[in-house]
Amino acid sequence: MKKCVGVDLGGTTVKMGILGEDGTIFEKWEIRTRKEENGKYILSDIAASAKEHLATAGIADEDFAGVGIGIPGPVQSNGYVEVCVNLGWKATNPADELSKLMGGVPVKAGNDANVAALGEQWMGSGKGHDNLMFFTLGTGVGGGLIIDGQIVAGSKGMGAEVGHITVNTEETDCCNCGNRGCLEQYASATGIVKQMKRALEADKTDCVLRGKDFSCKDVLDAAKDGDALAVKTVQKSMDYLALAMASVSYIADPEVFVIGGGVSKAGNYLVDMVQKRYNELTPLSSKKADIFIASLSNDAGMYGAAKLVL
Amino acid sequence: MKKCVGVDLGGTTVKMGILGEDGTIFEKWEIRTRKEENGKYILSDIAASAKEHLATAGIADEDFAGVGIGIPGPVQSNGYVEVCVNLGWKATNPADELSKLMGGVPVKAGNDANVAALGEQWMGSGKGHDNLMFFTLGTGVGGGLIIDGQIVAGSKGMGAEVGHITVNTEETDCCNCGNRGCLEQYASATGIVKQMKRALEADKTDCVLRGKDFSCKDVLDAAKDGDALAVKTVQKSMDYLALAMASVSYIADPEVFVIGGGVSKAGNYLVDMVQKRYNELTPLSSKKADIFIASLSNDAGMYGAAKLVL
Repeated sequence: MKKCVGVDLGGTTVKMGILGEDGTIFEKWEIRTRKEENGKYILSDIAASAKEHLATAGIADEDFAGVGIGIPGPVQSNGYVEVCVNLGWKATNPADELSKLMGGVPVKAGNDANVAALGEQWMGSGKGHDNLMFFTLGTGVGGGLIIDGQIVAGSKGMGAEVGHITVNTEETDCCNCGNRGCLEQYASATGIVKQMKRALEADKTDCVLRGKDFSCKDVLDAAKDGDALAVKTVQKSMDYLALAMASVSYIADPEVFVIGGGVSKAGNYLVDMVQKRYNELTPLSSKKADIFIASLSNDAGMYGAAKLVL
Repeated sequence: MKKCVGVDLGGTTVKMGILGEDGTIFEKWEIRTRKEENGKYILSDIAASAKEHLATAGIADEDFAGVGIGIPGPVQSNGYVEVCVNLGWKATNPADELSKLMGGVPVKAGNDANVAALGEQWMGSGKGHDNLMFFTLGTGVGGGLIIDGQIVAGSKGMGAEVGHITVNTEETDCCNCGNRGCLEQYASATGIVKQMKRALEADKTDCVLRGKDFSCKDVLDAAKDGDALAVKTVQKSMDYLALAMASVSYIADPEVFVIGGGVSKAGNYLVDMVQKRYNELTPLSSKKADIFIASLSNDAGMYGAAKLVL
């Protein structure tokens, strides 16, 4: 069986694993991401660690497919990274560099959210579906589009930057990107907290969160417990997510949507809200795309990175 | 050189041609679309006409790549057509049927707007770009998404139904689809006329169109001539088109956009408006996608249909 190394390169840790083409994880481990001196040690650390583990695993040359790596920033289809703020990198081709550091083995790189989407499509909630859109709801909102089993990386560095789809043309507050009314302003963890604060200001009815410092999880828990204002706030955020999903359907029409990231831990409570609104927003389709919660959690990136070379 | 028959099947006429793999049109002709009896004669008419022209052209069997056909309705990736209102068809596989009628030659079918997108990508304004989004602004708004030179047909029959992307969450009027605020309500020929009528009601300033019966072309001409209210109306419609394009970029990130259909005859006047607004709406991208007017006019469908089998 072909085997490879899957690398999920994050801002704090690097998750690595040796995976087989059937999706088996033979081994997984982590190393620290050394961001010192504009991240100049990161790739040599990864190469050294991969070589050490590969030597111990004793994989025959003809069975080794190479290394796949997910990177926390935009990656062009040729592997070029113009800038990666999270790591301090500028104008580099990490796939080529890592390949050199490992004696010329095949290396492929992709954006981390795109790669996580591929992981979910290969071995997670999207298994069995060639066309999938992944939304990750964390501090921000990212995503990945998979068409015919392949990542759509995009040509101008904006592929699956779904957090910046405009979902509210009447928004007055600015998004970090400079526009107004981006999905990220409502459906990220930060966005949900902000919308809850807005709701508390605008609506003086009782709410368990009033007068408290609260997190996104607190808002979601309050909503699940039936707090009316929290329910209304979460519903509004999920309505905007459904609107963005409907736009995705009217453009690329995937079979399934997968929701990951911290916010997705609220599980089927969110899925039910989003699916209902999404179905209303897609009257042209008799068969609706299913919406699932991601199932690979922190391993999605490693799986997807492996799939890049398997 | 490989040759094939490209067929653009419309509700009134069938445009047909013999094309080569370098894009040469050796011959083109039209036949009437016989919609009688739920369109049962359409495919046999096409087969008979194609066979006649192929016999005259004298193409060697080994040089004949088959027949590509664009169909005015949703086509699944396996060629299946659940329903085609424009032709009266139900539950049919026109590619398989046409192949049988022509002695088993390879036949591939696609949705007409998707196929026109492929035509523009192959030999029109999108030539040289593997990733392209086509918007056709006619009575309605349709489109086609091309990724890596392939049509993204979609899995639920909604691929590139871009006319139904929500661009105005505050709209009170209903779209034909049942939603409110679809792109089609603003950027189609019908939509532009409707928005102009609305503007004339809401704003009592001078306008050359006031008190007249007018077409979309009249509105565009008035705008080009500098009529303030017409300019404002067309600008608003093009702002919504730019917003939909920005959403496309944040999802699939194509290299170029191509605008076709009747409205596109207003040419660079529209392109300039849309490009300016699109650039503002995509702050995340340092290199902007170019927006072009379609160049193949009524032949786009025939070219794209040919490309399906070439």
